[in-house]
Amino acid sequence: MSDRPKRATIRDVAVQAGVSFQTVSLVLNHPEKVAEKTLAHIRAVIDALHFVPSMAARSMRQIRTKTLACISFGARATYDNRSFQIQDTYWNNVLQMLGRASDAQGYALLQRHQNDQDANALAEVRQLFQAGRIDGVIAIVETVANPVLLELQREHFPLVVFGTRDPALPYVAQTNAVASAQVVDHLHAQGCRRIAFISGERDGRANEDVNERLHGYRTAMQQHGLPVDPAWALAGDWSLASGHRIAQQLCGSSAGPDALIFASDRMALGALKGLHDIGRRVPSEVRVVGFDNMQYDDFSVPPLTSVHSPVYDMATMAVQILVDRIEGRTDDLLPQHMFATSLVLRESSAVGTRPAPAGAPPSPLPGPE
Amino acid sequence: MSDRPKRATIRDVAVQAGVSFQTVSLVLNHPEKVAEKTLAHIRAVIDALHFVPSMAARSMRQIRTKTLACISFGARATYDNRSFQIQDTYWNNVLQMLGRASDAQGYALLQRHQNDQDANALAEVRQLFQAGRIDGVIAIVETVANPVLLELQREHFPLVVFGTRDPALPYVAQTNAVASAQVVDHLHAQGCRRIAFISGERDGRANEDVNERLHGYRTAMQQHGLPVDPAWALAGDWSLASGHRIAQQLCGSSAGPDALIFASDRMALGALKGLHDIGRRVPSEVRVVGFDNMQYDDFSVPPLTSVHSPVYDMATMAVQILVDRIEGRTDDLLPQHMFATSLVLRESSAVGTRPAPAGAPPSPLPGPE
Repeated sequence: MSDRPKRATIRDVAVQAGVSFQTVSLVLNHPEKVAEKTLAHIRAVIDALHFVPSMAARSMRQIRTKTLACISFGARATYDNRSFQIQDTYWNNVLQMLGRASDAQGYALLQRHQNDQDANALAEVRQLFQAGRIDGVIAIVETVANPVLLELQREHFPLVVFGTRDPALPYVAQTNAVASAQVVDHLHAQGCRRIAFISGERDGRANEDVNERLHGYRTAMQQHGLPVDPAWALAGDWSLASGHRIAQQLCGSSAGPDALIFASDRMALGALKGLHDIGRRVPSEVRVVGFDNMQYDDFSVPPLTSVHSPVYDMATMAVQILVDRIEGRTDDLLPQHMFATSLVLRESSAVGTRPAPAGAPPSPLPGPE
Repeated sequence: MSDRPKRATIRDVAVQAGVSFQTVSLVLNHPEKVAEKTLAHIRAVIDALHFVPSMAARSMRQIRTKTLACISFGARATYDNRSFQIQDTYWNNVLQMLGRASDAQGYALLQRHQNDQDANALAEVRQLFQAGRIDGVIAIVETVANPVLLELQREHFPLVVFGTRDPALPYVAQTNAVASAQVVDHLHAQGCRRIAFISGERDGRANEDVNERLHGYRTAMQQHGLPVDPAWALAGDWSLASGHRIAQQLCGSSAGPDALIFASDRMALGALKGLHDIGRRVPSEVRVVGFDNMQYDDFSVPPLTSVHSPVYDMATMAVQILVDRIEGRTDDLLPQHMFATSLVLRESSAVGTRPAPAGAPPSPLPGPE
């Protein structure tokens, strides 16, 4: 994909750009201190000469720390540590899968959080690398065009983004828009016409994944000629409690949606309980679908239809991409891999509904009126 | 707690023991290759001289890698990666909490699995340390007296065991036996007399935590003069599916237990669904209690009574113990901290049962017949 740069030195760049060695060094280590025009000029020279800073060059030598870092960028999750309760989050599982995949390649995985508002973030990641503590980075981000990652990528630093499709960076990601469209198609076929999509936000911000899911939903609704009530455009905070609350808010009357798609299973599972608590029947009155396909989905009442996330395959590929770069088995500086999701049908969307247990009223299968 | 050893060298040990320098080195690095009698003799000299091997001595110098390792010892969890579904496990959460606590102290956390059947396990952990990749170890074990950890402790290696009370090692742990007794007392007060405890095993092995929970249950049952039917002594494999299966197996007839205590919430949540599927009512016919106090417990049908695990406090303390050792703020070689659990009462044990939604039969509150 690119010529592996081998010869240009930082002095070559300085000579070619007509600046001092120190200025090039500043561009490499503290770009925020360099005037924009100078920065652009020197970076153009760096690109033209295929110059690789020593940090990245080091990774092409035989010194391996045999450690990968999984760095999550973004604000800290906001829950209160003191009242911490065990919770099942998608990211806990991603971390576990990345750990296993690293282990299988003989690498340890180091976890780290990096506040992306922090001006030192870039320096801190570099320091991990320069101190010989890591060979490469698996990044978890909330937005595309993370400036720290863009700079590391410029420097040919071994990195891969997990879960977010950033056109400028190497990534492994899943097909979120297609997944949403599949869910809408399925619910439409079940007779649903008033389908709401409940998004997720952390500190008021949706991530790219969720925006893609929302986009796929809107497009599919339009293709089916189904209206989207602006009052349905709600976002939870990924918690069970927010799903519980929003489901009750939307489905308190029979004029509400006849199907709820949640951007995560956690919110959808909270919604099942919320609907149960106000006596709204799932799936006969409201159908519910989530994202992630958590193990628990088979054991909720009723079991939850959900979009399966290929976490294992994605984690395996993310580690493979990094290790191949680190160990010099590929020159591809921009590997980008999409993974297909699949829709796992269960009773919450009226598929495979089992006979109700003795004593409970029968659960009717036809679509909502 | 002990004199910090400062002067003895490996040569002092060799002279005192009347062996060669190489033999002492072998004892330190490959004890499995040394005859038992020689090993005991040289170790006695090491203890008498308060000799600290260079690996541990290194940690008392100013060279810090600012990295802790969380190493889980034991056989690999057996689930199939390819069909991996997002799951909420206690250990995922422990890892997350340890990561946060490390982060708060300016340390990164490296995760690693170590097969404790592996003869190289000791050498591999030492290598992490000697290569300057870690400053200390937080160990997760399934059994006490893990030989690798005992040897590291002998060498004054900075380590702490998370979750298991091993008398010979530093640890943070929770009061499991007391917790079980509280659950039995509570269920007894609710009128239950046929109380079963369902243990958990991985690859046919229960861990120390679970053994303590089981012991606490048996003692409390005896104190209340309640019989324990040998047919109830079952163990799940920690999965939701095993809880589902065992609940149906035990409660298929009215002669079964009137209360089920599960060694984990995951199994208990599976049990709630299992009982739902055969039309057994919780809590009126069978009460159910779990361990861990997962967030989901508030959202199951009915909400699940559970033993709260103080994961945050335990993780914070584990990291504090290590960092204090690494940074030379304590001489305590055997810090051991117990944390109290608490019983969180919810509807599955007939506490705070809300009126049933319209259409469902009323949920009677009195104890089982």
